Amino acid sequence: MKKYQEQVDVWFKENKWEYWQPLAIVARLFEEGGEFSRLVNHVYGPKKKKVDEVVQDMEEEIGDIIYTLICFANSHNIDLDKAIQKSIDKVVVRDKDRFTKS
Amino acid sequence: MKKYQEQVDVWFKENKWEYWQPLAIVARLFEEGGEFSRLVNHVYGPKKKKVDEVVQDMEEEIGDIIYTLICFANSHNIDLDKAIQKSIDKVVVRDKDRFTKS
Amino acid sequence: MKKYQEQVDVWFKENKWEYWQPLAIVARLFEEGGEFSRLVNHVYGPKKKKVDEVVQDMEEEIGDIIYTLICFANSHNIDLDKAIQKSIDKVVVRDKDRFTKS
Amino acid sequence: MKKYQEQVDVWFKENKWEYWQPLAIVARLFEEGGEFSRLVNHVYGPKKKKVDEVVQDMEEEIGDIIYTLICFANSHNIDLDKAIQKSIDKVVVRDKDRFTKS
Repeated sequence: MKKYQEQVDVWFKENKWEYWQPLAIVARLFEEGGEFSRLVNHVYGPKKKKVDEVVQDMEEEIGDIIYTLICFANSHNIDLDKAIQKSIDKVVVRDKDRFTKS
Repeated sequence: MKKYQEQVDVWFKENKWEYWQPLAIVARLFEEGGEFSRLVNHVYGPKKKKVDEVVQDMEEEIGDIIYTLICFANSHNIDLDKAIQKSIDKVVVRDKDRFTKS
Repeated sequence: MKKYQEQVDVWFKENKWEYWQPLAIVARLFEEGGEFSRLVNHVYGPKKKKVDEVVQDMEEEIGDIIYTLICFANSHNIDLDKAIQKSIDKVVVRDKDRFTKS
Repeated sequence: MKKYQEQVDVWFKENKWEYWQPLAIVARLFEEGGEFSRLVNHVYGPKKKKVDEVVQDMEEEIGDIIYTLICFANSHNIDLDKAIQKSIDKVVVRDKDRFTKS
């Protein structure tokens, strides 16, 4: 993720933009998450579109969600690679424990 | 809320509709919440629209959120009046404690 | 909903509280929605709890969501009865059209 | 993101796990987003904690959100690197247009 975080950061600096205030980023995350949710519901909820019809849009929404998180992370000096690796490790470790105990 | 819950229920029964499956209702709640969030961000986030321009839309989104919750409540025999009153009481009681202790 | 809106409003005025800023209310809505979502996932997602085990908690979360919306509505002069009725009417009207056209 | 997607995929295959159904992943995303939202509200909303007190937790929540999206992406053959790059490009391009037009 390092290169994405830097790309965004460089771009903001070059344009002298500031990151949105944190609560506005959260509101954006809610919005983007809601759009993603709508697409998933179109396929797996009552509307029954085919997944092929919306998978491109899903990709776009997921990209937008992660972009939103990059903005937040950059404005709080959060290293996303570290964050992701820790979340993956939690699942792996949690599971390892489960398997060795049994 | 009783009359709204009944109105919706009668309507669904007359049309032989079934309530969506619960996870689809949650996805809809996410979507509706996200739309509401977008509007609030337009006014109080970086976009700075005037509140008058969107307050009608806000009203609509809030109505849609509560309608979504009515559908969930109806399909789980949840009494919304009881639910709301309890949530209000929590705040009141929490506060009463705070004030009488001090 | 009128009585709930008034109850909350009176309580806030008596205690000289102010409603949170709108983006903070949205963040709270996200939080409460997320807690509700977690409960629904416990029953209908991969965890398979029984609905009886969590329906009380669901009621509580739904109450909290609506309480959050009451706070927002009160601070924006939004009449929730009107909002809910309009959302219900949309569904009814949308459907009436569909049935008379066919 | 490729290595994270593969790590998770290998782990799921080794343990013969299946990815959750899509609507359950959306519900989890709502939950994780809500937890993140709560933390942000603790600092920038009415509660006024110091950001140092929660930045570690924020990092964890963001990691969990992205992990949730990795699971969805893996179960839909979505390439997250492509997705992120496209979302970044949208902002850059949108802006380039704006600046060259003026």
